[in-house]
Amino acid sequence: MAKDTKKEKGLLIVYTGDGKGKTTAALGMVVRAVGYDWKVCIIQFIKGSWKYGEMDGIKKLAPNVELNVVGEGFVGIIDDKKTIEVHRAAARKAFEMVLAKMSSDNYELMILDELNVALNLGLITREELEEVIKKKPEKLHLVITGRGAIKWLIDQADLVTEMKEIKHPYRKGIPAQKGVDF
Amino acid sequence: MAKDTKKEKGLLIVYTGDGKGKTTAALGMVVRAVGYDWKVCIIQFIKGSWKYGEMDGIKKLAPNVELNVVGEGFVGIIDDKKTIEVHRAAARKAFEMVLAKMSSDNYELMILDELNVALNLGLITREELEEVIKKKPEKLHLVITGRGAIKWLIDQADLVTEMKEIKHPYRKGIPAQKGVDF
Repeated sequence: MAKDTKKEKGLLIVYTGDGKGKTTAALGMVVRAVGYDWKVCIIQFIKGSWKYGEMDGIKKLAPNVELNVVGEGFVGIIDDKKTIEVHRAAARKAFEMVLAKMSSDNYELMILDELNVALNLGLITREELEEVIKKKPEKLHLVITGRGAIKWLIDQADLVTEMKEIKHPYRKGIPAQKGVDF
Repeated sequence: MAKDTKKEKGLLIVYTGDGKGKTTAALGMVVRAVGYDWKVCIIQFIKGSWKYGEMDGIKKLAPNVELNVVGEGFVGIIDDKKTIEVHRAAARKAFEMVLAKMSSDNYELMILDELNVALNLGLITREELEEVIKKKPEKLHLVITGRGAIKWLIDQADLVTEMKEIKHPYRKGIPAQKGVDF
């Protein structure tokens, strides 16, 4: 298929809230973009938020999709033996990658997965987020995921969905499920 | 890759609410499932809810993913020239397909896209929905999308996320966007 060049203004899209489906919806946007033969860049701010299922599935959508796992795993959970400095360094690396990928203007869709969480953990700063939004190429659709999107980001965004948890299997004692949680 | 057979109990998952991301999250689950080499069956109750981007993207995930477009287009909108009987017949065909696909027990993930809408429009009945839930194979993850999920379905479900519209580009006068809306 000939490359279907994107001509419209790119949107700033935010998937936030405490419910499941934020990263999953971003993944779904990748499928749609690949259908248009767009180039997609995914940058993960928190490693571990996408697991084997997603990664192997994404590989089947190659070569149009580039997945960059930059984060250093979940922060502050039981098996987190890394110092906050290690997490900050990883987030800074992810931030610099975002700016570099944006300036290449090579993509129609970019997903900054769990950026909201990285911001709330202090791994990146509000000023860095502002720089990312300011430098978004005109035609790029930029998707930011993660619970706890700040009001400033919501004000900037074109499309915001809050994924609200109505019912979660953990509460019924069902453990994390392959294909659903990872 | 060897087929990674699903052994856990399959969940009943509902994506509902007025915000964007319901069908998109279902699409994201397809990517994850394909990563595990699962077989996926998608049945659309309302044709037109998935457009070219999704369909072409899904094709790249073949042969594991089967997409069945059964519905007859949106109901009651301006260019809908079909009678309600035509829509009902299509929904009945979709319902019968669901039962047949379920009884084959050939899939790890099944997505019934916009079934909630088909129910609210009276294209399928509450009893038909109950039959679907009753006949779900033990290991199948069943995902039902569409705004307006009924309370009974939410009570039955293991995982329910309400996609809540916080901000939508239409409200800012931005038209439907390729890669986002279709």
